[in-house]
Amino acid sequence: MKKDLDHLMRRNDVEALLVTGAGDHNPYMVYFTGGVHLTHADLVKPRDRTAVLFHASMERDEAIKTGLDTRSYLDYPIKDFINEADKDFALAMAFRYRKMLIDAGVSSGKVALYGKIDLGKGYAFFSKLQTIMPEITLVGFQENDLLSSAMMTKDAEELEHIREMGKITTTVVAKVVDFLASQRTKGDVLVNRAGEPITIGDVKSKINLWLAESGAENPEGTIFSIGRDAGVPHSSGTASDFLRLGQPIVLDIFPCEQGGGYFYDMTRTWCLGYAPDQVYKIFEQVKTVYDQIIAELRVNAPFSDYQRRTCELFEAMGHPTVLSNPRTEVGYVHSLGHGVGLNIHERPSSSMEGLEEDILAPGSVITIEPGLYYPDQGLGVRLENTLFVEENGFRVVGDFSMDLVIPVKS
Amino acid sequence: MKKDLDHLMRRNDVEALLVTGAGDHNPYMVYFTGGVHLTHADLVKPRDRTAVLFHASMERDEAIKTGLDTRSYLDYPIKDFINEADKDFALAMAFRYRKMLIDAGVSSGKVALYGKIDLGKGYAFFSKLQTIMPEITLVGFQENDLLSSAMMTKDAEELEHIREMGKITTTVVAKVVDFLASQRTKGDVLVNRAGEPITIGDVKSKINLWLAESGAENPEGTIFSIGRDAGVPHSSGTASDFLRLGQPIVLDIFPCEQGGGYFYDMTRTWCLGYAPDQVYKIFEQVKTVYDQIIAELRVNAPFSDYQRRTCELFEAMGHPTVLSNPRTEVGYVHSLGHGVGLNIHERPSSSMEGLEEDILAPGSVITIEPGLYYPDQGLGVRLENTLFVEENGFRVVGDFSMDLVIPVKS
Repeated sequence: MKKDLDHLMRRNDVEALLVTGAGDHNPYMVYFTGGVHLTHADLVKPRDRTAVLFHASMERDEAIKTGLDTRSYLDYPIKDFINEADKDFALAMAFRYRKMLIDAGVSSGKVALYGKIDLGKGYAFFSKLQTIMPEITLVGFQENDLLSSAMMTKDAEELEHIREMGKITTTVVAKVVDFLASQRTKGDVLVNRAGEPITIGDVKSKINLWLAESGAENPEGTIFSIGRDAGVPHSSGTASDFLRLGQPIVLDIFPCEQGGGYFYDMTRTWCLGYAPDQVYKIFEQVKTVYDQIIAELRVNAPFSDYQRRTCELFEAMGHPTVLSNPRTEVGYVHSLGHGVGLNIHERPSSSMEGLEEDILAPGSVITIEPGLYYPDQGLGVRLENTLFVEENGFRVVGDFSMDLVIPVKS
Repeated sequence: MKKDLDHLMRRNDVEALLVTGAGDHNPYMVYFTGGVHLTHADLVKPRDRTAVLFHASMERDEAIKTGLDTRSYLDYPIKDFINEADKDFALAMAFRYRKMLIDAGVSSGKVALYGKIDLGKGYAFFSKLQTIMPEITLVGFQENDLLSSAMMTKDAEELEHIREMGKITTTVVAKVVDFLASQRTKGDVLVNRAGEPITIGDVKSKINLWLAESGAENPEGTIFSIGRDAGVPHSSGTASDFLRLGQPIVLDIFPCEQGGGYFYDMTRTWCLGYAPDQVYKIFEQVKTVYDQIIAELRVNAPFSDYQRRTCELFEAMGHPTVLSNPRTEVGYVHSLGHGVGLNIHERPSSSMEGLEEDILAPGSVITIEPGLYYPDQGLGVRLENTLFVEENGFRVVGDFSMDLVIPVKS
């Protein structure tokens, strides 16, 4: 949690965090700024002191809303640094970062780097900064990174944001079900009032609309796919596909607050009208594994234990999994779940190559999402909920029916 | 343009481009992939050869849609590299990138880095890659960067995307005007049917909805602000503010295609009911400068010439500008415009510290957006259109009235 930050910095011997990039859709920045609109900003968080936000003069009102210490870039005119750097722009930026660090009271020790920016800029500016400021040590990604460790558990305010996104997401999923259930059919295809087939793309447009109405957005898209596409976990679906009865439809929806705040993640698999035996059997197996894993989850256990367990359960049912064949593209082909927060995928990780620290600690928010995939049989099933890990157990955030069949009008 | 890429690589003595990150909201990646859904991918574009896209196995269907050469990460199992790197994850990733480069036929020379990713990862992985692969030279941001140079001019297909976004944007702006004009007033405040004041936040929600309906999104937000906020160019507006008659309202809307494709950018300034003399005077001055600059624009001229010219015109009217005082927060405080494409802000730049190469070449898409700001007087005016630079002149993409006053019902 945020309150652990100074402690984690001390434990990792880190003197300061340097976070850069936009104020929107930039999780590490939003963690500190709360998501105000900043085209580009730099933030220095020295250990045991308040973070300093460096911002464009035009964005001073937004910067002030963050409650952080603020400094305008007007005091760091790039023109001066370009002169000093003899027109080498990357060196000029390095000079500027050096001055910002020093002004924030950071002149030595480890400085950890964060923020979503263009790799070309990041590599050029910070390689130069390291060269001209040897008294600091720039630290890039480390597996057990302190900021992602802090973000792994959420405080009450953060949980409230995720809970709200859970409400919005389940409401939108309910609208999808209502929409599908209220259309007519012609042959084995869902049609609108004019008798024209409804497509995957039509429903996706409605989902976008319903999300926007609710103050949410889906910057990473929505998976809404049918048949073979449903059998390829990350296929987002083919817009022109018709909605045919008796074929598995996967809706995996992972929206966030508008402007790029907290996410929520859920998946349902449906068949319109009826479920063929083969789909029903696979669905029941996924549901059984989902229920079994939920029953077995223990607070503070390693998340990866349950990935292994999921593989074992599916293998006992006769399915290939990534446990016995990491390259399999049929059967159970992915991870059990992931942390959810300002990133749609964050720690704790359920990967069996994951970190010891990635446990199901109280305050974590995770997904549980077993699935089975047989694309050549036009078949894929995944069921997913987001759960809060609490002191005494696990709570599904946005409860919603897992029923396979959506009845349709004839 | 894309077709110039090999030529530009040769001129810059660059052997390969390495682009990394998601397939959504990642302009350099979208430039090559067309925006298919890829959670994370790596792309190597060797000079004079087709780009190779490295992708997650689960996203193989999306990868194939790009028409690029594709390779699955299954052939680059991270576990193997972690063993090779003795559990140093950043080193493992460097080993993996080395293998991907070699497999794409790149074993020496300059490799230019691109893509929106986390700085910590970028710095760590690519610093290590440079160390273990001294036969290549990694190149980060350079001012006259070849890929941003290529992207500065658009081919017919790209222009069509921007034209479509122009239609969508002007349609949404028209809906905003219609909405404001069709409400009632109570005192000096716009109210809904129930007689409750309409807020800035209410209108922003509607804008989001109308954008979603049109297949667009606004990942960087929308500026809709009134009074003092309108006087601070990048203030995005205060959600709880009422819409009062006679106060300047700035709408600066810059949406992109859903999933993070091409952008469009336009700004209008309005007064509801009537315009006080002071607002009217400032508005007329901004409009005069806008018209004058549009009349003076010449194909292939340096964009920065017109920034200087804009400052001169405003100074002749008695306003402070960034020309005589780079720190001014009143008067004309920003740049005249910018390129628009897969980034909302891209080259050519109108900055007076910009590059010689940033000219108004045919195929460029630019904004022209003069403005005047006096926040302490509750006053700000900006007018902006996006223009195509053509062989014979300049064409406003989405034409729309610049009228200041929106009449309201009494």
